Amino acid sequence: MDNKYRPIGVFDSGIGGLTVLKEIIKEMPNESTIYLGDTARVPYGIRSPETVIRYSLENTHFLYSKDIKLLVVACNTASSISLDSIRRTVSIPVVGVIEPGAKAAVRTTRNKRVGVIGTEATIRSSSYEKSIKSVDRDIEVYQLPCPLFVPLVEEGWVEGEIATMVAEKYLLDMKDIGIDTLVLGCTHYPLLKGVISKVMDKEVTLIDSAVEVAKEIKEILETSDLKKGYQGGALREFYVTDLPERFVIVGERFLGSSIEHIEMIKL
Amino acid sequence: MDNKYRPIGVFDSGIGGLTVLKEIIKEMPNESTIYLGDTARVPYGIRSPETVIRYSLENTHFLYSKDIKLLVVACNTASSISLDSIRRTVSIPVVGVIEPGAKAAVRTTRNKRVGVIGTEATIRSSSYEKSIKSVDRDIEVYQLPCPLFVPLVEEGWVEGEIATMVAEKYLLDMKDIGIDTLVLGCTHYPLLKGVISKVMDKEVTLIDSAVEVAKEIKEILETSDLKKGYQGGALREFYVTDLPERFVIVGERFLGSSIEHIEMIKL
Repeated sequence: MDNKYRPIGVFDSGIGGLTVLKEIIKEMPNESTIYLGDTARVPYGIRSPETVIRYSLENTHFLYSKDIKLLVVACNTASSISLDSIRRTVSIPVVGVIEPGAKAAVRTTRNKRVGVIGTEATIRSSSYEKSIKSVDRDIEVYQLPCPLFVPLVEEGWVEGEIATMVAEKYLLDMKDIGIDTLVLGCTHYPLLKGVISKVMDKEVTLIDSAVEVAKEIKEILETSDLKKGYQGGALREFYVTDLPERFVIVGERFLGSSIEHIEMIKL
Repeated sequence: MDNKYRPIGVFDSGIGGLTVLKEIIKEMPNESTIYLGDTARVPYGIRSPETVIRYSLENTHFLYSKDIKLLVVACNTASSISLDSIRRTVSIPVVGVIEPGAKAAVRTTRNKRVGVIGTEATIRSSSYEKSIKSVDRDIEVYQLPCPLFVPLVEEGWVEGEIATMVAEKYLLDMKDIGIDTLVLGCTHYPLLKGVISKVMDKEVTLIDSAVEVAKEIKEILETSDLKKGYQGGALREFYVTDLPERFVIVGERFLGSSIEHIEMIKL
């Protein structure tokens, strides 16, 4: 196939990566996409590094066999652990979710106080902090796990009183610290953007990793002459490793559009 | 060792089983106990039956090697999948968490409408429903997963406005159905008993599986002449398969007392 017409491959441990896919589609609606959610083995955050790398490589090989032109690792845990291993095994560009968000935070902050919120596993790994400090070590990074945000989003309780009160309870300290930039360091969190921005001061800029990843992909495709352009329709394929029912129901909320071509596979 | 002086062994996939241990200690303060939390491999609810059985047997063998006189499987997933396999490999009484709660619900209900709340995995397995209906098939069982309850409890947000609003949102339908008995089908939920009973009508009886399990154990020890009686102090040992820090912090809230003798092991 002509290089330009090959699809973009995206994998995540589950459903969260669909917020990244959504931004990719918004930014480059003509590009075909293949999404793999490793729903049978979610969550990756509780597994050993060796296991996360093995799962990531299995996901990579599946998508690579579909002749993708670029791979997006839309999972925070896999991004922070497996990128090097993946890059050694494939000859296409590989984009993780941490670096684009970290770089955007560095570009955005004026007072050099950046907040990062994420799951307990992501915060414990300090991957955003390391990535931010590798660019500018004078930036102070305040990290906070928000364990209730993922179940809130999966329940669809992304606005209203409960979501607002939970966000207030978590983010009060972040407000007091006086950060001017807040990284949403979990692929589920963009769905809570409304509530989070309501709770934080107006001067605080929210960094949505999904948006930054989509921008980075566009740039890579343009500079490597792999961008499809405007001819022809885009294919949307979805694969999961567990029963697809719940993925479709919750996922359509994440994606903001319907999930049609979905298949369960064994890795 | 004299049979009576041997400890009671308890295992769970993580921290939740400490609510069961708490009730065992309350009911039988003189009995020594050994608790194993398989924190490196939690949660069991997302794993295949074969894997859950394998983990359960590994946990069992570890505790059995400590010369326990009775084994408590304080994990809903393991209780619904592994009890038969465990019973085939050890020659001591084995008590799960589902049957005692189910039997208590059957004894309690007057209008034969019983509600069961639990994690998504427990509700999907219908193990409480099957257990209740195996005793009285005329009882109607209304099941409801409450995915936010576990993270609420682990955050320590067990009272106050947020917990109350979440409980109201989940339990409104249960109230409308007119159940008179509600089974707390997850070892985390006893910590939300206050909020749940405030939200439900006063006539609804809450069944705390942990309390029922402790009663059943006492009965077994008495009838099999294994009860220790009142001589000598009780030993409290704890083992985990991942780093113990978080287990101790969260666990002391579950247990209502301090966790002193804790060790990390490899299974």
